[in-house]
Amino acid sequence: MCTAITLKTKDFYFGRTLDLERSYGEEVVVTPRKYPFEFRNGKSLKTHYAIIGTACIRDGYPLYYDAVNEKGLCMAGLNFVGNAFYCERSASKPNIAQFEFIPYILGKCSDTDEAEREIRKINLWNTSYSKELPVAELHWIIADAKRTITVEFVRDGLKIYENEVGVLTNNPTFDIQMFNLNNYMSLSPESPQNNFCRRISLVPYSLGMGAMGLPGDTSSQSRFIRAAFTKLNSVSGNSEEESVNRFFHVLGNVQQTRGNCKAGDDFEITVYTSCCNASKGLYYYTTYDNHCISAVALQNENLDGEILRRYPHKKSEKIDLLN
Amino acid sequence: MCTAITLKTKDFYFGRTLDLERSYGEEVVVTPRKYPFEFRNGKSLKTHYAIIGTACIRDGYPLYYDAVNEKGLCMAGLNFVGNAFYCERSASKPNIAQFEFIPYILGKCSDTDEAEREIRKINLWNTSYSKELPVAELHWIIADAKRTITVEFVRDGLKIYENEVGVLTNNPTFDIQMFNLNNYMSLSPESPQNNFCRRISLVPYSLGMGAMGLPGDTSSQSRFIRAAFTKLNSVSGNSEEESVNRFFHVLGNVQQTRGNCKAGDDFEITVYTSCCNASKGLYYYTTYDNHCISAVALQNENLDGEILRRYPHKKSEKIDLLN
Amino acid sequence: MCTAITLKTKDFYFGRTLDLERSYGEEVVVTPRKYPFEFRNGKSLKTHYAIIGTACIRDGYPLYYDAVNEKGLCMAGLNFVGNAFYCERSASKPNIAQFEFIPYILGKCSDTDEAEREIRKINLWNTSYSKELPVAELHWIIADAKRTITVEFVRDGLKIYENEVGVLTNNPTFDIQMFNLNNYMSLSPESPQNNFCRRISLVPYSLGMGAMGLPGDTSSQSRFIRAAFTKLNSVSGNSEEESVNRFFHVLGNVQQTRGNCKAGDDFEITVYTSCCNASKGLYYYTTYDNHCISAVALQNENLDGEILRRYPHKKSEKIDLLN
Amino acid sequence: MCTAITLKTKDFYFGRTLDLERSYGEEVVVTPRKYPFEFRNGKSLKTHYAIIGTACIRDGYPLYYDAVNEKGLCMAGLNFVGNAFYCERSASKPNIAQFEFIPYILGKCSDTDEAEREIRKINLWNTSYSKELPVAELHWIIADAKRTITVEFVRDGLKIYENEVGVLTNNPTFDIQMFNLNNYMSLSPESPQNNFCRRISLVPYSLGMGAMGLPGDTSSQSRFIRAAFTKLNSVSGNSEEESVNRFFHVLGNVQQTRGNCKAGDDFEITVYTSCCNASKGLYYYTTYDNHCISAVALQNENLDGEILRRYPHKKSEKIDLLN
Repeated sequence: MCTAITLKTKDFYFGRTLDLERSYGEEVVVTPRKYPFEFRNGKSLKTHYAIIGTACIRDGYPLYYDAVNEKGLCMAGLNFVGNAFYCERSASKPNIAQFEFIPYILGKCSDTDEAEREIRKINLWNTSYSKELPVAELHWIIADAKRTITVEFVRDGLKIYENEVGVLTNNPTFDIQMFNLNNYMSLSPESPQNNFCRRISLVPYSLGMGAMGLPGDTSSQSRFIRAAFTKLNSVSGNSEEESVNRFFHVLGNVQQTRGNCKAGDDFEITVYTSCCNASKGLYYYTTYDNHCISAVALQNENLDGEILRRYPHKKSEKIDLLN
Repeated sequence: MCTAITLKTKDFYFGRTLDLERSYGEEVVVTPRKYPFEFRNGKSLKTHYAIIGTACIRDGYPLYYDAVNEKGLCMAGLNFVGNAFYCERSASKPNIAQFEFIPYILGKCSDTDEAEREIRKINLWNTSYSKELPVAELHWIIADAKRTITVEFVRDGLKIYENEVGVLTNNPTFDIQMFNLNNYMSLSPESPQNNFCRRISLVPYSLGMGAMGLPGDTSSQSRFIRAAFTKLNSVSGNSEEESVNRFFHVLGNVQQTRGNCKAGDDFEITVYTSCCNASKGLYYYTTYDNHCISAVALQNENLDGEILRRYPHKKSEKIDLLN
Repeated sequence: MCTAITLKTKDFYFGRTLDLERSYGEEVVVTPRKYPFEFRNGKSLKTHYAIIGTACIRDGYPLYYDAVNEKGLCMAGLNFVGNAFYCERSASKPNIAQFEFIPYILGKCSDTDEAEREIRKINLWNTSYSKELPVAELHWIIADAKRTITVEFVRDGLKIYENEVGVLTNNPTFDIQMFNLNNYMSLSPESPQNNFCRRISLVPYSLGMGAMGLPGDTSSQSRFIRAAFTKLNSVSGNSEEESVNRFFHVLGNVQQTRGNCKAGDDFEITVYTSCCNASKGLYYYTTYDNHCISAVALQNENLDGEILRRYPHKKSEKIDLLN
Repeated sequence: MCTAITLKTKDFYFGRTLDLERSYGEEVVVTPRKYPFEFRNGKSLKTHYAIIGTACIRDGYPLYYDAVNEKGLCMAGLNFVGNAFYCERSASKPNIAQFEFIPYILGKCSDTDEAEREIRKINLWNTSYSKELPVAELHWIIADAKRTITVEFVRDGLKIYENEVGVLTNNPTFDIQMFNLNNYMSLSPESPQNNFCRRISLVPYSLGMGAMGLPGDTSSQSRFIRAAFTKLNSVSGNSEEESVNRFFHVLGNVQQTRGNCKAGDDFEITVYTSCCNASKGLYYYTTYDNHCISAVALQNENLDGEILRRYPHKKSEKIDLLN
């Protein structure tokens, strides 16, 4: 499962955790403007906005998990098993496969409003990348510095929600996730008042008791609440270092530790955590095996090229020995 | 507030978070064997076991928060406000001030059993380090690879508990913390069964639902349960890198994010997180402002020296720019 | 707010609590077959099935809260504030006001299937009974011995859900209430297993710990879960006395005690609790002020009459003094 | 398991639930002043205060579960399995068997202060009533209109606690039960405020949400919290009828429904619920099988008699058929 958040300080930040029981060979991949996106529907995008994000590459094609384009438009796909519903090939609308959805939108659109209009025009087609890679059941968070939306293709059709909390996890549908937050409205970073009975002496015996009731497990509903509470109450300065630091702290609250969440015979872990400064095209990440933050700068690449630039994720603990 | 844990893989690991609203100038401090510990009772330890840990230094004296000696004996003091009770100067027993307790025990004792015997002999004296540094109300976790105990001086006297979970946080007293774990006994890393009613179709809609009920707030009781669950169910290989990685992941589940826990006009954060390989004297740590792990090796120092070696905590994000 | 349940033993039972901050003069009202129902749309039902239930009578008209007809069809309206959405007068469909909905359906339909077909034909019209009695925002549970449904008129239109748990409370919409039950699937009447960590001794210190996590407050979502758990796990013999006794015990778990739930300047209480043996037309009830069960038997009335029979609710504690 | 509460309106009320998987033949038993209490230690009380309460009678001896004497002193024993610890016969103190404890105290003492002094003098002797009736592991609530205490004989010796909430259930020890209430201090009968994040619109969708977090299961810790919250926030008028009504409503919140709490091969139920007006000696009760309140008045008996007066509990639903 996964958790995505947005964060606005001086710049706009966007990122996510990817929680899986295994790695598929994640890399930071820069797609320059002239890398040709050939779509399954026979059309292609010869030139487009440059994109940076984490992807797995199959046959030279970047299967993006989360990405940001040079205009600052951000998009991530998160598991939505049992609820996602894609359609058969449409005769009237452009057919976009699930695995083409991020390149298509980030390649063409400069902001969330444009993305929304584009999404309303297309048919999300239920064709798979290959026999080995079946159609992933996903929903998406799309954001720029001004507006964040959640996009769900369900049995009822396309649902686009304003995402005012800037959080997405997995099941259930976004409207239920948001409704459920009402149940936690009294939670607070401050110490609790004695509302139980004033005649009885009840006292906080610890700091932090005002958030008692916040769920601590790794289910998608609990991560949604926890990520929302942690993020909405987090504070930091506006600098790049402070913003990135805060972003990783917030997502650290929804990380998955190996052994704590059984997935078949294995365990889910937070394979990687990303944080992109969408305003500047700076893509930061950590992996389960490396607490140290790595970074790739979009602006340090030749954006007019035709060839994918690949930076395989760092997967060993970079330890700073001081003596 | 704070959380301490132990972890046994091939080697034995011990560490803690320090959660405070401010920093007091933490450093990794190595105390070599011949640094003279002068105690307030007029006695001193001219030679003793070498010690490594995090301390604040005042007037050349190391005020240890957590430390490990060269024999692999580990000790950390954690807040215990309202419950800690130290005594007036005793006429019959050696008087050890609270701030001398870690040096005294780690200086003299080679294992937990010896530490326990020594603790039963002393009087924990309620004298403060200075006017500016009042007596800290603490309780302690003491561990070697074979045995972990919790030590509490309360109004009723000295209480020494076997600590089978290898976790310590803050209030309430350790017996209540352990009793309270019974309330969470059904939590599991596995998906839940439908026990509610077999005639109704209820299904897990997400992985991780078997741990629903695990508290997610930062109060001391909730951190105790969460640290215990996360640690006891965590898995990793036995190598140094895997063990250290796992240790920081476990403590990552009880980290405090700035803004989420009000402390007066400020917020508590996890100032630092430590992990010491007690078998080898390797002391690792991260700070709130630096996700990258730093390390100091006891064996790289001259252990027969007389002078403290100091490595001020690294407090800026060490980012590995890949392009 | 309110809670309704169904129960099947040898016979079929249906009832509810009415939770309000005041009473409106509730009575058990028997409407015989020839009492003429005049509807606001100008049509009327001159003869119909006889009905028994709790109503307030205004201008000689029975405003039913819950009722059962002589065929064993049961229906209750429960608060659904903010979600209920009724329409303007329709030109094409029969217009039925909200306050006419129970008489209309119970007057005409002999079972749930028939009720569903009828409901799909009508327009639920947003006209009020009077200036003093504005349109109540409700949803409904409709049941016979074979099938129970929930009926909601929302902004999206009419929603009819199979109600397999036989429980209805208030907000949110029924699909969310049912989805939310998944979060409680591990709750059990049996003592919990130690899944937390087998190496640590954790034990139940009390019976009943297998249901820890069951919410105890009186909000509509918590009452839904608690009523479902209590009812689905309840057991009794099949006799009339045992069945009625069990029914009142189940609803006793969601009763509201004066002072525990603020409503404006006043407090919500369980004004009355009803239980109707739908198979036999025996209507039982208790009131907040009288724990003793009162009953009215449909079969003891002249069902072919034209005049309402009224039994005002008993509101003083009937105490059986034994000496 | 069981729950006991006190309630003060104009008069003082005391009562309890008895939760067991079976009945032992409970009766309301009046012990007049001259019924001779013969104790196992060879001593006896030839005359004493008259007592009313629920007991099982064995060989003509009243084994009281809860009782009140003519002076308004109240006492009830509740399960305390694993924590209760009684002593071997003492050579120096009066030896009182567990089953004699209520008659001994209520026979001799006129108020709580006197009871406390008496208890500090005796040895609670671990002798059983008979082979068939082993020693019950209990703790006690003792109350008059001015002061309520909890009495526990544990391995550490006798513990007497001021009981300011006027609630007792079962495990854990009373100090832990009271400490645990701090975790619920923010619960309230009022609707919650949005403390989560003011920038996001979160609203109560139901009344009663201010008490979300109140546990709903039947474990002894959950019943303690729920009984305390319900009672301390309950309101009523001062009249006898209103007070008794309120008392049964409060205890209704901790009743046990058959099927919801497994006990071996059977289920615990609330066998009976009592409420005694201690000021007037009016003893009210309901049973699982009879919702109607029965009553026995101490003042209607000949208090100077020598013979027990017995009123076996009413166990069939007394239904008031209105037509």
